[in-house]
Amino acid sequence: MNFQNTNKILKVVLSVGDESGIGPEVILKALCSNEIPENIDYILVGSKKNLQNTYRHLRSLGLENIANPKNLKIHDLEISSSDNDTQSSYGNSSFQYLRKAIDIVKQSPNSALVTGPICKKSWSLAGHYFSGQTEVLAKACEVKNIGMLFTAKSPITGWRFNTLLATTHISLSEVPKKLTTELIHSKLDLFKDFCNYYTDKPTLKVAGLNPHAGEEGILGHEEKDWLNDALITWNEKNKDIRLLGPLSPDSCWNSSVKAWSENNADKHDGILAMYHDQGLIPMKVIALNYSVNTTIGLPFIRTSPDHGTGFDIVGKGIAQSQSMIEAIKAAIEMTNKSRQLNTH
Amino acid sequence: MNFQNTNKILKVVLSVGDESGIGPEVILKALCSNEIPENIDYILVGSKKNLQNTYRHLRSLGLENIANPKNLKIHDLEISSSDNDTQSSYGNSSFQYLRKAIDIVKQSPNSALVTGPICKKSWSLAGHYFSGQTEVLAKACEVKNIGMLFTAKSPITGWRFNTLLATTHISLSEVPKKLTTELIHSKLDLFKDFCNYYTDKPTLKVAGLNPHAGEEGILGHEEKDWLNDALITWNEKNKDIRLLGPLSPDSCWNSSVKAWSENNADKHDGILAMYHDQGLIPMKVIALNYSVNTTIGLPFIRTSPDHGTGFDIVGKGIAQSQSMIEAIKAAIEMTNKSRQLNTH
Repeated sequence: MNFQNTNKILKVVLSVGDESGIGPEVILKALCSNEIPENIDYILVGSKKNLQNTYRHLRSLGLENIANPKNLKIHDLEISSSDNDTQSSYGNSSFQYLRKAIDIVKQSPNSALVTGPICKKSWSLAGHYFSGQTEVLAKACEVKNIGMLFTAKSPITGWRFNTLLATTHISLSEVPKKLTTELIHSKLDLFKDFCNYYTDKPTLKVAGLNPHAGEEGILGHEEKDWLNDALITWNEKNKDIRLLGPLSPDSCWNSSVKAWSENNADKHDGILAMYHDQGLIPMKVIALNYSVNTTIGLPFIRTSPDHGTGFDIVGKGIAQSQSMIEAIKAAIEMTNKSRQLNTH
Repeated sequence: MNFQNTNKILKVVLSVGDESGIGPEVILKALCSNEIPENIDYILVGSKKNLQNTYRHLRSLGLENIANPKNLKIHDLEISSSDNDTQSSYGNSSFQYLRKAIDIVKQSPNSALVTGPICKKSWSLAGHYFSGQTEVLAKACEVKNIGMLFTAKSPITGWRFNTLLATTHISLSEVPKKLTTELIHSKLDLFKDFCNYYTDKPTLKVAGLNPHAGEEGILGHEEKDWLNDALITWNEKNKDIRLLGPLSPDSCWNSSVKAWSENNADKHDGILAMYHDQGLIPMKVIALNYSVNTTIGLPFIRTSPDHGTGFDIVGKGIAQSQSMIEAIKAAIEMTNKSRQLNTH
């Protein structure tokens, strides 16, 4: 089943992110791409004036495939500020765009959210103390158990490569302290629900924390002390899942390389990484521009491109829009999959 | 200049590693490969009888391209043991093979060492308490500052991809405690010396420790507290090096993917990783079977394949010998490069 069968057109709400970054540029480029599905109700949340300025500037550089804001639906937010062009004002406006975009999606049952990149430092300069957009979403939706999932669809094999992070934006030294059986169980619960959009009996892999997954305690005790047991007890309650791990982190993603590039390779449904760089290094190395950041556990689908504000290349017209295109496509695919499941 | 110009034939000494693992199999396979240079004096250190048994077994499985031990130079070590077939006896013999191989290389100025995989647990069962072969080498050569370098030559572009580990076989929780300015400086010194075999003015990259390299202290303080400064002070003393970092770990290896697969991409000479999995995840994802483990800082070149004993596949004839082939080729290339440099 897809949106057409329900006679409701899917709405994709895009917050433009920090306007001193590349968010507006990649959104205008992406919405002009022929990879983007039609028959979708795209709504931008941002400043109409600023989007028009971005459009004119990119055109003046000689770029052609740029969506013209006058042909787009824009929820125009005029953010009043005494200092319009400072880092703090960009921090404030990008925060307000996100808040408004969330409100719209919450009020529209058949919708998904795609967020442009923001700058956390600018947010804090504007007095918005959140460690990222994900945390704003969790608060706005009043959910505690959310997950940061990176996902990419291979253009070679069509396989969807999913990596969920057990811990996210914390220092490396905090990682071993933060990991617990409860945390791992809650992430596996989320991961299972997500994978069930696609298959009834997913295969999930779990990376170890330590080199060689601790090598029987010689290179770290967490696997031996509790992580092995945590996986066993979760799997006993979730027998439909083929759960493998804790696996040696340095070879855990080898099968992902094959699944990404070879049609006949074994395909797994996801890998749970213990920390940010453990998951994101292989994700970016394997999938680079195809990787999309997704928040799972929310009442709706939210995706964003897997890059930052790109302050160093802003205004040059050279920002790659592939990740934004993938974010939009993934939001649509996942929303359709979740509705399919919920209407069974 | 190569070995022929000096009228001395390069000697490559191979310790067979743990004989209950795949070491003997991959060595016999590798030495039969037409990728392996001729005019090299290959010497195996192991048990002649066991190598002959391995050969006969592999032949009985129908495998053909296997070097016959009777045509190889073998430094035959008969390790006396009351229990010949236990994990502990394999631990002891693999340790003795390594020790003998080191002795031979130390006594032969024009030689390199290639080591087959061993099992640390078997070593400790046999009373040899070392955390790996690298530590045995450091002790035997009486050097303190050594480095674990992973290196792979791209079969597509010919570019050599080098990743040096600042810390190696320790638990993740120990990593932030172990890293210091002195450690980073000593590793960069080693890395520079190694890169100078190939180029006068290398470009080196250094990964951060924390997500986004700490993001100005928000996601970890080590970069801000001392790592930034450590790189600056080292670079001031080593102005010939183009030193970049600390870089965001999750995007640090993106340029390696390009250099590996595209002829026109920018080429860097090496990346210093802060910990085992940070370096080895991208190494294996990008280079897989081409990756070779090298010890730098020794008076000679030592390489080994980038895999373990493979106990689960032993005797099946299916072990891949590509990494052993690459280890032998790399040992020869690097020894020639280092001699070239030393005779300038």
